[in-house]
Amino acid sequence: MLQDQTKVQQALAHIKAQEPAYLEELIRLTEIPAPPFKEERRAAYFLEQMKLRGLKDAYIDATGNVIGIRKGTGNGPTFLIAAHLDTVFPEDIDTTVTLRDGRYYAPGIGDDTRGLAALLSVIEALETSGIETVGDIIFAGNVGEEGRGDLRGIKGIFRDHPGIDGFVSIDGVRMRRITNGGTGSRRFEFHFTGPGGHSFGAFGLASATHAMGRAIAKIGDIETPTLPKTTFTVGTVMGGTSVNSIAAHAAFALDMRSNDKSALAELEKMTKAAALAGVAEENARWDNGEISVEFKLIGDRPVGSTPVTDPLVQAAALAFDAVDVELEGLGISSTDSNVPMSLGIPAVTLSAGGDAGGAHSPDEWYAPLKSYKGPQSALLVTLAMTGVAGVSDPLLKTL
Amino acid sequence: MLQDQTKVQQALAHIKAQEPAYLEELIRLTEIPAPPFKEERRAAYFLEQMKLRGLKDAYIDATGNVIGIRKGTGNGPTFLIAAHLDTVFPEDIDTTVTLRDGRYYAPGIGDDTRGLAALLSVIEALETSGIETVGDIIFAGNVGEEGRGDLRGIKGIFRDHPGIDGFVSIDGVRMRRITNGGTGSRRFEFHFTGPGGHSFGAFGLASATHAMGRAIAKIGDIETPTLPKTTFTVGTVMGGTSVNSIAAHAAFALDMRSNDKSALAELEKMTKAAALAGVAEENARWDNGEISVEFKLIGDRPVGSTPVTDPLVQAAALAFDAVDVELEGLGISSTDSNVPMSLGIPAVTLSAGGDAGGAHSPDEWYAPLKSYKGPQSALLVTLAMTGVAGVSDPLLKTL
Repeated sequence: MLQDQTKVQQALAHIKAQEPAYLEELIRLTEIPAPPFKEERRAAYFLEQMKLRGLKDAYIDATGNVIGIRKGTGNGPTFLIAAHLDTVFPEDIDTTVTLRDGRYYAPGIGDDTRGLAALLSVIEALETSGIETVGDIIFAGNVGEEGRGDLRGIKGIFRDHPGIDGFVSIDGVRMRRITNGGTGSRRFEFHFTGPGGHSFGAFGLASATHAMGRAIAKIGDIETPTLPKTTFTVGTVMGGTSVNSIAAHAAFALDMRSNDKSALAELEKMTKAAALAGVAEENARWDNGEISVEFKLIGDRPVGSTPVTDPLVQAAALAFDAVDVELEGLGISSTDSNVPMSLGIPAVTLSAGGDAGGAHSPDEWYAPLKSYKGPQSALLVTLAMTGVAGVSDPLLKTL
Repeated sequence: MLQDQTKVQQALAHIKAQEPAYLEELIRLTEIPAPPFKEERRAAYFLEQMKLRGLKDAYIDATGNVIGIRKGTGNGPTFLIAAHLDTVFPEDIDTTVTLRDGRYYAPGIGDDTRGLAALLSVIEALETSGIETVGDIIFAGNVGEEGRGDLRGIKGIFRDHPGIDGFVSIDGVRMRRITNGGTGSRRFEFHFTGPGGHSFGAFGLASATHAMGRAIAKIGDIETPTLPKTTFTVGTVMGGTSVNSIAAHAAFALDMRSNDKSALAELEKMTKAAALAGVAEENARWDNGEISVEFKLIGDRPVGSTPVTDPLVQAAALAFDAVDVELEGLGISSTDSNVPMSLGIPAVTLSAGGDAGGAHSPDEWYAPLKSYKGPQSALLVTLAMTGVAGVSDPLLKTL
C-alpha cells in the first residue's frame, strides 16, 4: 500500500505533527476577510504561504485564483487540487476568531478556510518528505465558488489549463461522504417591463408587477421529478416605484437545480413558458400598454457526476480506509467539482477534516477534532492519482 | 356684488399690486425644502410670515400645522382655508429656483408652495384693507397632504377644531375647475410570511414569494366599475433574501381608489379575498410549511363630495366670474378636501393662480401669469362664506 512507503509515512506523520500549527494558520487565514468578488487580500497571503512552503512556480492568474505548480518526473497526468478562497460573508462582517468550549467561532472558518489550511498542509508534507510524483500537481486557492461567484474561479482554471486530467476539491469539514455528483443549477432574473403610469389616472394600463405575479403563480404550479431531484424557487422579487404608480418594471430571481441535465433543461423551458403565458394573460386583461419579459442568466452551474467505478472515487474510498474514517456514502452537491464533471473529467469533492457547524451563518464554528485526517486523505488521493516515482504508477489517465 | 364694496375693492387691488412681491415670497418659500414628514423648517418660516401680516393668534399645532386665527365680529360660522406645506420631494433634492424663458423652475414650486404664497397674499389683503368678517377664519399651512402623509395635517385640524363649518383648500396652480369631489383611497401592505429554507435542501416548502405571486395574479383579474371610477394596482413588491432560498417573507403595496365609498369597500373585500385564496392555493400545492398573510393599512383617504348646489360651490363659481376666468367644470381628485367632505362639511379645492407644469417631477415649473386671480378668488369665496360685517350675511351655515 502507498501509505506503507517510507516517504509517504513521513509525510502523513508530518501532517499529524503539524496539526496545531495548521490551527494557527487557519485562524490567520480566517481573519483575512474574503467576501464574494473581493478575495484579493486573502489570495495575496495564500500565494505567499504557498511560496514559503516551497512552491516556486506560483502566481495569481487573470481570474484571481492562486495557482501553484509542482512538476512531476514527467510524462504523467496533470492533477488539480483546490480549495476556495471566497466566503459568503460581506466585507463588513467581523471575522475575528473566538474560542468557546473547544470551538473556534468565526464566519467562514469552516467553509472553506479550513480547506485552504488543509491544502497548505498537504504542500508542506510533500515538500518536507521530498516525495516525487510522476504526474504534475496544480494546487489552487480559487475564487468565486459561492453564490453569484458562479464557480468562476474553477471555470477559469479549466479554461486556462486544458490539460488537467483529474480534480479534487477540498470543501466542507466533517469527513463523511465522497461527493461524486454535481447538482446543476441555472439561475435567472426575469425582468418584466411596461409603460407604467399613475394608478388612478392611467388605470387600464397593463402592469409589470401584475404580469410578474401571474408568471410566479404559473411557475408555482410546475411539477418536477423527485428523482433525479429537480427543484425551483422564485427566491427574490422586487418591482415598482411607488404605491400609487402602475409599475413599469418588476423582476424576480429564479433558482433551478437538478441532478440531471435534461431535467434541468426541461424545467428552464417550463419556467420561461410560464412567464410568457403570465405576460400574455396580463396583456390580454387590459386595453392599454404591453408588458414584455426578458430572461437574464445570472448563474450556471453545470450538472455532472463521476462514476463510482472511476479510479478517483475508488482511491478516495481507500483513503478513508487508510486514515480510519468510516465512509458514510456518496454525495451529490453543488461544488467546484461540477465544472470538471460536466467536462467529463474525473472529479470529487472531499472534506478538509475536523468538526464544524453553522456554515453560511455568522455563528459558524470549527473544532480541530482529528483534523489531520483531512489533509492525510487528500495527500493519499493525490499520490494515488499522480503516481509516486519509483513506487506506483498514476491511476489517473491522461485525457 | 361683494366685489363692488370699497374695502373689498381695495383688498382685490392690493393683491394685484403685490403680485411681484408674492413671486419673491414664493421663491423664498420654495427654497426652504419641505419633504414628507419634515415640514418643520418651512412651517416655522410660514408662521413668522403669518404673524408679520397681522395674524396675532398664530401657532404650530401638535400635528405640525401652522394655524392662524382671524376672529369675526361674532356669532358667525367658522371657515378654514389652507394650503399644504409638504412637497413630494426628498430632503436632498435641490430646491434652488432658476428662471428660464419666463418659467421659474424648482421641485415643489407649484404644488403646493404657490398655494402657501397665495394664502399669505389673502391674509395681507384682509389686514391692509381692514375688512371685518362676521364668521371666524382659520388660515392654515398644513402638513402631510402628499403620499404617505395620508392627509394627516388636515385630519388633525378637523379633529382639533370640531366647529369648522366650511373649507377651501388652495392646491394646484392653473385655475380651471372647482374640485368638489374627493376620490377616496385605501392603501395596504399585504405581508406574506412562512418558514423559508434552502431552495434545494428544503424543496417542497411553501414559499412567501410564490403565495404573493398567486395573490397578485388573482387581484389582477378583479373587475371594477368604470363609473364611479374605481381603480387598483399592486404598486411595489419586495420579497425574499437570496436567489437560492425559499422566501420566508414577501410583501406588496396595494393602492385602491374610488369616487364611491361602497365601491371602494367592495374592492377592498375582493383584494383581501384574492390574497387569502392565493395563500390557500400555495399551501395546498406543497406538503410542508404554511404561508400566512397580514393586511397592514398604510393609507386611508375618505371618499366624499360637496353637492354642486352647495353655496360654497356656487360662491366659487361666482368668484371665477368675478376675476374673469372661465370655469371649465367640476373636478374629482384626492386632496385635503376629502376629509371635510367625508364628514359632511362643505369643502372645495381651488387653484392658487398662475401657470405651472411638471408637478411631482424634478422639472416642476411655475409662471406668474395673472397669478393674482388665485388669491383674489380665494378672498371672494372666503368673504362670501363668512360674511362681511355691515355688508353681507355669511353664506356658510353653522353646522
